[in-house]
Amino acid sequence: MSVDQVVRKPHERLAAHLGAGMEAVNALIRERMASRHAPRIPEVTAHLVEAGGKRLRPMLTLATAELCGYDGPYAVHLAATVEFIHTATLLHDDVVDESAQRRGRPTANLLWDNKSSVLVGDYLFSRSFQLMVEAGSLRVLDILANASATIAEGEVLQLTAAQDLATDEAVYLQVVRGKTAALFSAATEVGGVIAGAPDDEVRALYDYGDALGVAFQIVDDLLDYAGDAAATGKNVGDDFRERKLTLPVIKAVALADDAERAFWRRVIEKGEQRDGDLDHAIALLQRHGALEATRADALMWAEKAKTSIDMLPAHELRDMLRDLADYVVARIS
Amino acid sequence: MSVDQVVRKPHERLAAHLGAGMEAVNALIRERMASRHAPRIPEVTAHLVEAGGKRLRPMLTLATAELCGYDGPYAVHLAATVEFIHTATLLHDDVVDESAQRRGRPTANLLWDNKSSVLVGDYLFSRSFQLMVEAGSLRVLDILANASATIAEGEVLQLTAAQDLATDEAVYLQVVRGKTAALFSAATEVGGVIAGAPDDEVRALYDYGDALGVAFQIVDDLLDYAGDAAATGKNVGDDFRERKLTLPVIKAVALADDAERAFWRRVIEKGEQRDGDLDHAIALLQRHGALEATRADALMWAEKAKTSIDMLPAHELRDMLRDLADYVVARIS
Repeated sequence: MSVDQVVRKPHERLAAHLGAGMEAVNALIRERMASRHAPRIPEVTAHLVEAGGKRLRPMLTLATAELCGYDGPYAVHLAATVEFIHTATLLHDDVVDESAQRRGRPTANLLWDNKSSVLVGDYLFSRSFQLMVEAGSLRVLDILANASATIAEGEVLQLTAAQDLATDEAVYLQVVRGKTAALFSAATEVGGVIAGAPDDEVRALYDYGDALGVAFQIVDDLLDYAGDAAATGKNVGDDFRERKLTLPVIKAVALADDAERAFWRRVIEKGEQRDGDLDHAIALLQRHGALEATRADALMWAEKAKTSIDMLPAHELRDMLRDLADYVVARIS
Repeated sequence: MSVDQVVRKPHERLAAHLGAGMEAVNALIRERMASRHAPRIPEVTAHLVEAGGKRLRPMLTLATAELCGYDGPYAVHLAATVEFIHTATLLHDDVVDESAQRRGRPTANLLWDNKSSVLVGDYLFSRSFQLMVEAGSLRVLDILANASATIAEGEVLQLTAAQDLATDEAVYLQVVRGKTAALFSAATEVGGVIAGAPDDEVRALYDYGDALGVAFQIVDDLLDYAGDAAATGKNVGDDFRERKLTLPVIKAVALADDAERAFWRRVIEKGEQRDGDLDHAIALLQRHGALEATRADALMWAEKAKTSIDMLPAHELRDMLRDLADYVVARIS
């Protein structure tokens, strides 16, 4: 093991391993986000694309394709496709959530306007669609079309479910599978498909992406109540202020007495929030062990992701994908 | 010629001819706009889909496929695809334009909220994508992917161009080709492609759809200044109030003296509108013959649509498509 491997984080090791491929993905993204006719498009897109996200999703596509022996040109197209879909959903999410910040920077809807975010999101979604058509595989198109529908359905479900105390863990999981896990699992599945991997390996890659995505979202939801802003870059209480019924709250509501239910109803369903409510909410989450139980769920999903790919042949990239699952939950371990 | 053919309007004759096919399209639309998980989706969609649009675009796909000899099952999928893309863009347009009415009814963004319109639009776009993948033709997918990108690009271009007096007829045409004609021409082109028509016929169908779409939009823009609300269902002055630089205004601005340019700058670029401004605008359009010139352009595009399909074999549907081009401009003839 080199010094590099010891000190670098798993996603950095993955990025280093995929070096040339990820450079090609970034070049393709820059090329395709351009528009001859509408200069507003690259302005808005560059703001997001250059914002320094981890490029986790395209790395998953490149890694799974290579892991299954692919050495053709189209993994790069599919990786860029996945990043474009992700960026399009971020633009639309920020309009829907009326967000002012993402990754510590002002959102596009704040810098330009909601109109630009809606239409540039549509443009990126169309561009993603062109990229995947170029890859020329109807099976890949089917997977990505289904993933897109699942993402949109999850987002709409969240609109109605997020502020409804009747939302239980099953509905939560459905929302998370839509808004987060569907793109992770599509990213890993198409890697296997483009490589012509056997069905059971493709299934294993899908399961890995699905579980990794669920773990990723649960960690995000947990850190919103239990995180350290300096370390995670997330502000504690954003979900609370936006009245989102996330897993920790769902677990606390399930164990709430009458007074506590009245509290949750006021702050989440009615949105009547006062000073001190966030502290009280966190105290309730702690009283019922909701943060601990949420943490345990995230670890379970990360473990599930790791075991999903046990059946794949031994490979340096298989080990990196396992480490990545550990890394996703490392912030709460 | 039957009595029916004499008294019915061209789009009604087309609908009657395509009867069973259009019923299948409507059934597929109803089936695919459903969502097992998110009941908000069919609510919003039904509001638009059942609003009684003319279904012009899906009829174009069914008609061109049949005209080129297709009798397989997938023209129905592609027709529904085209209508879903259209409905998705309407939902997003109403958010972007902050519209309160469409076809005389309150818009979805008013009845529900902008969030629902953005996300349900995304869902319909994804569903359209699934439908076209089912048709199994990479060439069709390529055409529709390119059309989607052109539509989004046209909409973004309109954001920046619509309130800029420097916008000329070339930019206007580019916006119109994006926001309207791209879907018309894709609708007619895929009809030919799915039927396996020779390249020159496919090209003719594309040209027909393109010219029909441009004519359609110019008529719409003209009626916004010269229409009779009772007859057209359009309110005169909507585009003026929304500060949209459409063709009649572009023509008048090109011939404006200094005082007139100052007027247009104030009402369109700065958006400072007062009582009487609309009447003054219409007087300026008349003074420079802008309404007449716009009308002539629309008629020219309708004529272009008709001659585009001269090279196709004689067919009842070819005649109906010609009549449809006349009908599109009949409101201003």
